[in-house]
Amino acid sequence: MDKEPIHLRGFGVSQGIAIGKAFLAEENHISLPLYTLTGDEDVEQECLLFQEAVAKVEQDLEKTKQSIHGELKEHAHILDAHQLILRDPFFYNQTLETIRKERLNAMLALKRSIRKISDLFAAMDDDYLKGRVADVKSLGDRVLRHLAGQKSSGFDDIRERVVIVARDISPADAIRIQLEKTLGFITDTGGRTSHTAIIARALGIPAVVGAEKATRTIGTGDLVIVDGASGRIIVHPTDQQIAFYYELQDALETYLKNITRKAHLPAVTLDGRKIRVEANIELVEEVVSAKDHGAEGIGLYRTEFAYLNRERPPEEEELFLEYKELAELMAPAFVTIRSLDLGAEKLGAWMPPIEQENPALGLRGIRLCLQHREFFKTQLRAILRAGAVSRNIRLMFPLVSGMGELLQAKAVLEDAKKELRREGKAFDEAMALGVMIEVPSAVAVADDLAQEVDFFSIGTNDLIQYTLGIDRVNPHVAHLYDPLHPAVLRLIRHVVSTAHDAGIPVTICGEMAGEPLYIPLLLGLELDSLSMNPQAIPRVKNLVRRSTLEECRRFVQQTLTLTTAGHIRDTLQELVLRVFPEEFKFFDPQAVRPNSRAA
Amino acid sequence: MDKEPIHLRGFGVSQGIAIGKAFLAEENHISLPLYTLTGDEDVEQECLLFQEAVAKVEQDLEKTKQSIHGELKEHAHILDAHQLILRDPFFYNQTLETIRKERLNAMLALKRSIRKISDLFAAMDDDYLKGRVADVKSLGDRVLRHLAGQKSSGFDDIRERVVIVARDISPADAIRIQLEKTLGFITDTGGRTSHTAIIARALGIPAVVGAEKATRTIGTGDLVIVDGASGRIIVHPTDQQIAFYYELQDALETYLKNITRKAHLPAVTLDGRKIRVEANIELVEEVVSAKDHGAEGIGLYRTEFAYLNRERPPEEEELFLEYKELAELMAPAFVTIRSLDLGAEKLGAWMPPIEQENPALGLRGIRLCLQHREFFKTQLRAILRAGAVSRNIRLMFPLVSGMGELLQAKAVLEDAKKELRREGKAFDEAMALGVMIEVPSAVAVADDLAQEVDFFSIGTNDLIQYTLGIDRVNPHVAHLYDPLHPAVLRLIRHVVSTAHDAGIPVTICGEMAGEPLYIPLLLGLELDSLSMNPQAIPRVKNLVRRSTLEECRRFVQQTLTLTTAGHIRDTLQELVLRVFPEEFKFFDPQAVRPNSRAA
Repeated sequence: MDKEPIHLRGFGVSQGIAIGKAFLAEENHISLPLYTLTGDEDVEQECLLFQEAVAKVEQDLEKTKQSIHGELKEHAHILDAHQLILRDPFFYNQTLETIRKERLNAMLALKRSIRKISDLFAAMDDDYLKGRVADVKSLGDRVLRHLAGQKSSGFDDIRERVVIVARDISPADAIRIQLEKTLGFITDTGGRTSHTAIIARALGIPAVVGAEKATRTIGTGDLVIVDGASGRIIVHPTDQQIAFYYELQDALETYLKNITRKAHLPAVTLDGRKIRVEANIELVEEVVSAKDHGAEGIGLYRTEFAYLNRERPPEEEELFLEYKELAELMAPAFVTIRSLDLGAEKLGAWMPPIEQENPALGLRGIRLCLQHREFFKTQLRAILRAGAVSRNIRLMFPLVSGMGELLQAKAVLEDAKKELRREGKAFDEAMALGVMIEVPSAVAVADDLAQEVDFFSIGTNDLIQYTLGIDRVNPHVAHLYDPLHPAVLRLIRHVVSTAHDAGIPVTICGEMAGEPLYIPLLLGLELDSLSMNPQAIPRVKNLVRRSTLEECRRFVQQTLTLTTAGHIRDTLQELVLRVFPEEFKFFDPQAVRPNSRAA
Repeated sequence: MDKEPIHLRGFGVSQGIAIGKAFLAEENHISLPLYTLTGDEDVEQECLLFQEAVAKVEQDLEKTKQSIHGELKEHAHILDAHQLILRDPFFYNQTLETIRKERLNAMLALKRSIRKISDLFAAMDDDYLKGRVADVKSLGDRVLRHLAGQKSSGFDDIRERVVIVARDISPADAIRIQLEKTLGFITDTGGRTSHTAIIARALGIPAVVGAEKATRTIGTGDLVIVDGASGRIIVHPTDQQIAFYYELQDALETYLKNITRKAHLPAVTLDGRKIRVEANIELVEEVVSAKDHGAEGIGLYRTEFAYLNRERPPEEEELFLEYKELAELMAPAFVTIRSLDLGAEKLGAWMPPIEQENPALGLRGIRLCLQHREFFKTQLRAILRAGAVSRNIRLMFPLVSGMGELLQAKAVLEDAKKELRREGKAFDEAMALGVMIEVPSAVAVADDLAQEVDFFSIGTNDLIQYTLGIDRVNPHVAHLYDPLHPAVLRLIRHVVSTAHDAGIPVTICGEMAGEPLYIPLLLGLELDSLSMNPQAIPRVKNLVRRSTLEECRRFVQQTLTLTTAGHIRDTLQELVLRVFPEEFKFFDPQAVRPNSRAA
């Protein structure tokens, strides 16, 4: 039986078309089928399904009880009451009654029983009784899962190439995903700079995020089309739609192949300004991709990976070998290593995670490192030593708010150098040092900071987040997170002019640098280099080559007289569609509106 | 038996000395006594205590079961397993064994049993089993509470005048506290601008926050001394200490009485600059306190109170009456009403609260109002109408990030005016409109904003939080939240000069304005007025009168060449101790360091 196509919209955050079967990776969510029953036979069949599912859960509980070993065995009777719940009249008899009387399918009928019991319990005065609701729900979920035929839906179960549909994809999930089996991503939450988006772009996998109802609408096995540029999703597409998107996929691949062929040439504007285009990566393995896509250096090497999912922090030697390999692979091009930028909630067993109400405003980045200086120094020693090998490593500190933190971090660095000197170990005495400009206060004191470092790197993701007071992954406000807010452009201009006055160069390494729409603005704002995920490099280089610096400067002049992000965006879109018509052919101009649903 | 004094330190956030018995208001925390048993008789006595406590909890459970009525009755057996846990050999026998063998007191012995069971369960592979740990802990807590003799320790139980000791005090708690019975506050968490601190200062109650171990160290009934200026706490003070602090209390009260007597005089610097000193309040009842303390107007009227703890949002008429009363009470002095500034997590039943990972960067303030325009308009109509009564109301919008939001909010305001005109209702057509400058982006576009409003009000609490990327109530980073960060001072200076260029005045209504230490700086930064909690007004006026604007300006010049908050603070402390020796006599100079424990 053919199903009607369902159209969903989200934020297109990683270009490309994916066409394939969906895989719902959502542990706690069970999608409820909406069918009702017609014949009496159906009804009895459905009752049987329910009874079997309950029996299966009973068996599971029994098995669990049997599996308890040793000392814990005596506590097995704690499970007894939970077995009782399964045969509770409300839970069991009433569900059967609902199936029979209202001809609801077993899952909906059970869901109704659970809701009824929960409501009764929730209305009680006694907190202890209220807490029992969780038991009922947890058992209910077990039965529902059996009815849905889902035993568990972790990423580990993926058997064929699929479009992964999830509420969100965390960095931890990303590690478990079998990438060679992933055609595309769809998530309920997140915006343009959510982890899912960053990961998808980094991997070159089409992705649509913030498609609110996705996990409730799409089931495992459903055929879906994902347009990672426009944010469109089609579930159960028609044959015509499938044909259309296969063609689009082809055309897009041809275009990308063409620009990728020229990616190794330098990016020089029509009026002769050379812009250095660099890559953001987080694994040594990505150096190949960075080089293949034409990166002229690594503008941001994220060092968090070595610290995640571990029992103990990495030792200096391990880090040294990692950084050394990285530097050697990229040489003679340079590599910019950012010192550890972890949040206190993401630490391992070796430094217990901290619960924070506003983690984005909490203990993270350089703040965390300055509270654990020995630990910090270990990383700095590894970086300094790796720098001695091919002399192409630059170091930068993240999340610095002002001179206080920068001077403290530099003191730890001096300390590390002193130790290495004493130990007679080789290191790069002249390693270039930079600071990330991503906290608004760092912009305000950029003149002071510029006296202490060799370069600035603007981290637009955090800078915009703090400047606007907007959490970019919060779906309720993500539409207010806008790189084109006049305040953001003014801050970038201020940082660049302050740095140039002090004679140091400025890179942008936030997501903004990899977004084609923003390239004319960033050129006009006089950035010296742009660093982005490798996949974005060919398009950006292509755009730089077709730009005229003079025109970009005039455009910035004009833009900075506008007072709202909306006006700026309209003007910018007009410009890019006029100047680069063929570049934006495959991209819905609405889709470049970050974090805003293309209505 | 006399106990040794215990000294604790926290952040002194509301000046004054409190001496009295502690009241531990902490629902989930049970403080464990550390005594061990000596004689055999003690041991058997302790076993009996434990057995009685278990029996009592069994009775409670039984009573709960009996109290279940109607439909729910059939589910009572869900409780059975929890009764079984109480007689579980690990839970019951082993605790008795620990008391007997190790001579531990019953609470410690039980705690150990609970931990052991929890560890065993936590090590299981099965998530369902893991979840049972909660049952064991919840029952364990019930028994522990019986052993501790605490049935419940809510604020409702307070019978005599006490020093309240809590982990934290939320605005909701504050409503329940019987203020006339409160001598002082001590909390484990929070910084200078936490809710507890703001509430305590507003109420004139001595408070020390962020005294990490307070709830674990202090028990109900313990005698404590709280020094709200220095952040010192003494538990079980000696007679000498009590005498010393009574004297200090006396001297402080005399000093405060003296300056309060002159609070009604204007605040004019020695070289003739008049500074308007205003009050921040959130209840109409506080008008009396504002006037008594010499407020020349209300610089910030918070309107959230009418929206909290309610089934439905307030109607226009109710708000109108509230604002009208406020305006009449203050007339002819003006009242600045801030439109609703709630976070989406604090809404009532009428607008379901939203879970957000970083609420400070989420849906709140003007953002929330612009997503619910009809609801917003109701408040604006009430404010406009109340303005017609004595023509002394000014309106301001919170959390505006730039022109986009300001223009949208103004459109809603125009809409409200149009409606009122159509309905023939009286309102203040010429009501002054201001915007709060508290998001860094608003600073960057202050020139544009100044063209659209009649005044600026700098909300330093949020502005500092976003500018530095620091959550001011997060104890792990609160010490980095510093109003003296050079970036903060530069931003304030920029806002003032931009506003003055456009011919509009600037107030500061953040906590910074009520902090004596910062007054010379704020004068030198050319602020037109300062708004603070009423209790802070007498001191601030007194300081203004003893200041010379020229000297303050020179001081700011000098300060702005310093690159770290630490240097600025040292210089500032030197200045105030030299210029106002008698003003800082009662205040530990270390204690004015916000959010930093005086070591």
